[in-house]
Amino acid sequence: MAEPLAAKTARGIAVWRPELALGQFRRGAGVDLGLPDLQVEDAAARGARTMVVGVANAGGVMSDAMIADVLAALRAGLHVASGLHQRLNDHPQIRAAAQARDRLLFDVRRPPGGLPVGDGQPRAGRRLLTVGTDCAVGKMYTTLSLEREMRARGLLADFRATGQTGILIAGDGMPVDAVIADFISGSVELLSPPRDDGGWDLIEGQGSLFHPGFAGVSLGLLHGAQPDALVLCHEPGRAHVRHVPGRALPDLRTCLDRNLEAARLTNPDVIAVGVSLNTSSLDPDQGRRALVEAEELTGLPAQDPVADGVGRIVDRLLAQFRTGSG
Amino acid sequence: MAEPLAAKTARGIAVWRPELALGQFRRGAGVDLGLPDLQVEDAAARGARTMVVGVANAGGVMSDAMIADVLAALRAGLHVASGLHQRLNDHPQIRAAAQARDRLLFDVRRPPGGLPVGDGQPRAGRRLLTVGTDCAVGKMYTTLSLEREMRARGLLADFRATGQTGILIAGDGMPVDAVIADFISGSVELLSPPRDDGGWDLIEGQGSLFHPGFAGVSLGLLHGAQPDALVLCHEPGRAHVRHVPGRALPDLRTCLDRNLEAARLTNPDVIAVGVSLNTSSLDPDQGRRALVEAEELTGLPAQDPVADGVGRIVDRLLAQFRTGSG
Repeated sequence: MAEPLAAKTARGIAVWRPELALGQFRRGAGVDLGLPDLQVEDAAARGARTMVVGVANAGGVMSDAMIADVLAALRAGLHVASGLHQRLNDHPQIRAAAQARDRLLFDVRRPPGGLPVGDGQPRAGRRLLTVGTDCAVGKMYTTLSLEREMRARGLLADFRATGQTGILIAGDGMPVDAVIADFISGSVELLSPPRDDGGWDLIEGQGSLFHPGFAGVSLGLLHGAQPDALVLCHEPGRAHVRHVPGRALPDLRTCLDRNLEAARLTNPDVIAVGVSLNTSSLDPDQGRRALVEAEELTGLPAQDPVADGVGRIVDRLLAQFRTGSG
Repeated sequence: MAEPLAAKTARGIAVWRPELALGQFRRGAGVDLGLPDLQVEDAAARGARTMVVGVANAGGVMSDAMIADVLAALRAGLHVASGLHQRLNDHPQIRAAAQARDRLLFDVRRPPGGLPVGDGQPRAGRRLLTVGTDCAVGKMYTTLSLEREMRARGLLADFRATGQTGILIAGDGMPVDAVIADFISGSVELLSPPRDDGGWDLIEGQGSLFHPGFAGVSLGLLHGAQPDALVLCHEPGRAHVRHVPGRALPDLRTCLDRNLEAARLTNPDVIAVGVSLNTSSLDPDQGRRALVEAEELTGLPAQDPVADGVGRIVDRLLAQFRTGSG
């Protein structure tokens, strides 16, 4: 795990479920999550039950080194969970090792069978979706932050996970990027069914309408989510679209407008309520400036959820839907 | 096959590969393709080698009646081909019957393994993509018509199939709507690799950016195709988006603009070169009026490929790319 973004699954669990994370296992100079470094045998001895394959590489295929680590974990008596496209259960050697030790293999990126085709019919309940200028710009982190903030205010709000890390954190969800292409929006309609308790579904976005590899997933997710409200996520200073050197990110205004335009297909009344910036790569002055610029460009509250929380975005959401039709 | 559009796979083969179609097998008052009605035993006796499951229902699941027909065909000594999402090879009874008779099962909607994530990097060669206002408006028919017309003029032009019917007709292709969502555009980059012989890849479109169930497939296909030229396909008079009663189709101008806008992500120079209308449900006067209106609305040649061919669209294509950078 030499590259920080590739370890986002490991980091997400460490940040959002620290009480469940006993330690980290790293190869060489891998990303440090601030957890105790443990070999699999030590982890098992300290009471760990499951090793989570914490990387999220494009394509989702296990390297030979990763396979060796999984086998070592099984030999040490750990269950293993993974959200890669390449499934633990499909690897004969891993499956045999798990069976031999009576250990469990959790492939969280395996979608359920019998998914419906999306129909976009209006459904009850309020839904917010995070969208982004790129992959890995903080959509999951923002969505979980919104859940925490809304619950702290006594509101009904439920995170709906759509990616491997979110599913491992929430314990449930829909691996939208792993479903058969015809069922993308239908799978999100299933993930976030009608609700009539006055609460919000907070749906984790994936990819970007401007990513040449993943825009199809993003559009199907947008249509299936049928959002009432969007929050746009962005990492200022990123040099190019993830995995595509030379390709610039869209500007915030264009990105937001295109998402709103596309979202109107299944919810003509959709609005944007905030911008979430990951300013961790900027110095504090630059970070503040980026937030001010984002507010000027979009007319929306802009916050860095790590540094500032998402309180002003939730304020805007509630103001819009209190005075609106809600 | 009570509904004409659901039989589009059967019809496509009968129209485009009549020399290979010995007869039709229908349940009750199914769609008549004008072929001799044959029971499976008669078909085998007349030299048929394969029964093609000719329906294309949403969701792609086999009914009990369909399963019974497949089993009967295998018992009669026929191979069976299908493009449904539910695979012949995944049905234990069908697989057992095929093995017992040493017959082959062709699941044409099974994508290859190891698909790449799309990167949208510019690649050599000319590509045309058909896009549409809805599913089943004539994208495949139009693309095959363009291939025929261009080849008749001595041009290098190759149909690239993306759906079950097209794959059965071409004998090759990529079932784009059946790939894992993360690989939609990558699968199309693989289907239509760089070419430097001056010829055109004519890529069959799928779905519509305005279909709430399938827009993700359409967008990924649009990005992966990296088209130089678009042809917009439409069926005037259709009451609502396919499978979604109450949802209107987009107007031609909006649909074309949104496709061009989205296509610019991977080819900033993309242009539209024609409109293809399926006017079969209109009387001749209405049909002519629809074509005139389409030309006025888009400034492009509009033709019904069944009634008029696609000669003027090819004229426009060649004029644009002769005087342009090609």
